[in-house]
Amino acid sequence: MTTESHGNRLDPHLARYAQRTHSMTASEIRSLFAVASRPEVVSLAGGMPNIAALSMDVVSRSVTEMLAKRGQVALQYGSGNGDPRLREQICDIVALQGITTHPDDVVVTVGSQMALDLVTRIFCDPGDVIVAEAPSYVGALGVFRAYQVGVEHVAMDEHGLEPTALRERLETLAAQGRTPKFVYTIPTFHNPAGLSQPQQRRAEILQICQSAGVLVIEDDPYGLLGFEGSIPEAIRAHDSDGVIYLGSFSKTFAAGLRVGWAVAPHGVREKLTLAAEAAVLCPPAYSQLTISTYLETQPWMDQVKTFREVYRERRDAALESLAQFMPAGTTWTRPDGGFYVWVTLPDGIDATSMLPRAVTARVAYVPGTAFYIDGQGRQNLRISYCFPTPDAIREGVRRLGGVLEEELELLNTFGTTAGPAGSAPTDQAAAPGPQTL
Amino acid sequence: MTTESHGNRLDPHLARYAQRTHSMTASEIRSLFAVASRPEVVSLAGGMPNIAALSMDVVSRSVTEMLAKRGQVALQYGSGNGDPRLREQICDIVALQGITTHPDDVVVTVGSQMALDLVTRIFCDPGDVIVAEAPSYVGALGVFRAYQVGVEHVAMDEHGLEPTALRERLETLAAQGRTPKFVYTIPTFHNPAGLSQPQQRRAEILQICQSAGVLVIEDDPYGLLGFEGSIPEAIRAHDSDGVIYLGSFSKTFAAGLRVGWAVAPHGVREKLTLAAEAAVLCPPAYSQLTISTYLETQPWMDQVKTFREVYRERRDAALESLAQFMPAGTTWTRPDGGFYVWVTLPDGIDATSMLPRAVTARVAYVPGTAFYIDGQGRQNLRISYCFPTPDAIREGVRRLGGVLEEELELLNTFGTTAGPAGSAPTDQAAAPGPQTL
Repeated sequence: MTTESHGNRLDPHLARYAQRTHSMTASEIRSLFAVASRPEVVSLAGGMPNIAALSMDVVSRSVTEMLAKRGQVALQYGSGNGDPRLREQICDIVALQGITTHPDDVVVTVGSQMALDLVTRIFCDPGDVIVAEAPSYVGALGVFRAYQVGVEHVAMDEHGLEPTALRERLETLAAQGRTPKFVYTIPTFHNPAGLSQPQQRRAEILQICQSAGVLVIEDDPYGLLGFEGSIPEAIRAHDSDGVIYLGSFSKTFAAGLRVGWAVAPHGVREKLTLAAEAAVLCPPAYSQLTISTYLETQPWMDQVKTFREVYRERRDAALESLAQFMPAGTTWTRPDGGFYVWVTLPDGIDATSMLPRAVTARVAYVPGTAFYIDGQGRQNLRISYCFPTPDAIREGVRRLGGVLEEELELLNTFGTTAGPAGSAPTDQAAAPGPQTL
Repeated sequence: MTTESHGNRLDPHLARYAQRTHSMTASEIRSLFAVASRPEVVSLAGGMPNIAALSMDVVSRSVTEMLAKRGQVALQYGSGNGDPRLREQICDIVALQGITTHPDDVVVTVGSQMALDLVTRIFCDPGDVIVAEAPSYVGALGVFRAYQVGVEHVAMDEHGLEPTALRERLETLAAQGRTPKFVYTIPTFHNPAGLSQPQQRRAEILQICQSAGVLVIEDDPYGLLGFEGSIPEAIRAHDSDGVIYLGSFSKTFAAGLRVGWAVAPHGVREKLTLAAEAAVLCPPAYSQLTISTYLETQPWMDQVKTFREVYRERRDAALESLAQFMPAGTTWTRPDGGFYVWVTLPDGIDATSMLPRAVTARVAYVPGTAFYIDGQGRQNLRISYCFPTPDAIREGVRRLGGVLEEELELLNTFGTTAGPAGSAPTDQAAAPGPQTL
């Protein structure tokens, strides 16, 4: 039973809601994740950063110094587009990915989720269409759905968003008289696919979008968290007018401060700022100035290197145990950075209907269907290796392997798995919960 | 020249924007406020809380203790509806205003501005209508405009929103087949009017809305900041199903943490949470836990009493100097709490066109037009006494008196004031800036 049908019976305000509200539904898998948060369950579901790798003393010293020096500013209302000093520092950070910009073109937001919300708010009317990779970030799909925007999925290959498929989709849409408001892409350490676009691929995608006159929204929360040493160049590095770049401190510092940003062309950032002021007046100065002081007084790039090592060790544990425990016919991606491995199950296995049995076996994941708008992904699941210890990851993958072996046995014996398809939970583009980030 | 017409010529993305974006315009008076932020100008414009009255040591101790005890939670993603412990504490706070509720029915937001945005998002389609006092909070008008919602202003008398006018307006709308999605009201220490509804008035307004089947949105950022000792009872105290109550820590603790809340009926708070997750994933745990620890470990009600004294002293300075310096024919409200005095100028004086001359005379205010959707308020201005020192307030009001005397002299001599009406800046429901909170 979904919250929506629940509401139909019990909520006396139902007739009052806006049309967009009827598309906001709670995910059925949430109740499963409530069970999955029990300590005996290994959760490979959540995309929570590994905050334990950050020294609490360093954070404490940063905020104490910040309050002593800039407390009156930190506790007060600030600019709708963010603290000027932090916007300068963001310019220095994005320069690491080849982006040249000016602090005036940076809009600080309450996490990059809010940047996504504002971009969609200023560009998209109900019924508009955007293009996104398949699979795509569940939180972005939740935003598009909340604004009643249609999503056209374009396939990925092992190098990410596939240029030929993108060109053809844009041409088909153009032939229908429909121009997408933007192409939404995560080129680096993709959530959930665990893939990165090589530079040549980025150039092709940009050229296709430029030719079609379509904006690119480049979502890049993991760009600095690569395991191979070099930092990939952003698409935004090659086009300052046609690309809106979204970044975040959630994975390089701490998610609980909720500080992200957009780098946007001049006219767009004015609209983003006006929309931000209507939405929240201003982002929290308290969080922004804490981060600004931390960046100024601490060796923050060393901390990023620590995070990389933490995640690399966990990525290795995930890949090794997948090789050890997955049954034949299972494939998965090999991420060079970020938080996620994308798993494709053997034919006939349904990751969505299998989830309750996995949770019973004390392992949780996010079924692939969460990352598509259209019901694709039943044969996929996402494994997050960011948060558990390497040993817990190995144990979780071992349990998952056991569940899969049982599923395959049922399939071979009865020609179907245990779950009746009709009652299987689905999570198609439901609102993002903290468990499915 | 507005930003909008500016954008028409220079912004290559103009054709891509959503319809709602064309109603998001920057206020022309913003550039004046940039001048007004020079130190020699006394600003009676901004609604910034007087943070200097809060001990920075107390804040610093609270955050240090919080990081030591709950740092791993503070730096991590949290629930979309806010920290469970803080929601319990909010229940205790709203109980001071007679509200009985449960932590599950509290949704923590990024300032109460975000609560306003989410309420409008879940209830209002483009073209819907809501009812609001005249004048009304500029930030609320900015939200309604951003969602393309029509605002029907209902007049106030000396006791706030006028019941007969409200009933008649609801009847007129009903006769047109239009049911407002809600009545938006600030019953206590109104921004900008400086008035409060007596209990009997609140009961009448609630009864009218209940009879008409219309929700009440009760916006209450100043409820604990009264100067007369007793805390007014909220409208929400008398109806838990028909009233959504909005509160904030911005004025009782610090605005820079951006923590507000909604208390909402069961079905509505589920929708608010889903909308919040799409908008920002979750409010900042870092801010929430700082406040939670502060409330738990510090005598926070003593701090509220300190704030009351700070604002009472400034209210007195404002009222005394208005009596001393305003020319005959000027009237103003006498607030028993909150931040604002609403001034009505002598016939023939236009507060909007006078503003540039006031800034030249080194005093700033917000013209009345900012607080109406429809161009009313030219004969009004809002004075904020919250932030300057009492001496600065007196000096600012003295300068304002001088400007008014000059305006009256021009009016008496030439039959008009100096400003050509055609080029007068307007600020009708433009996006709220920090200066016009």
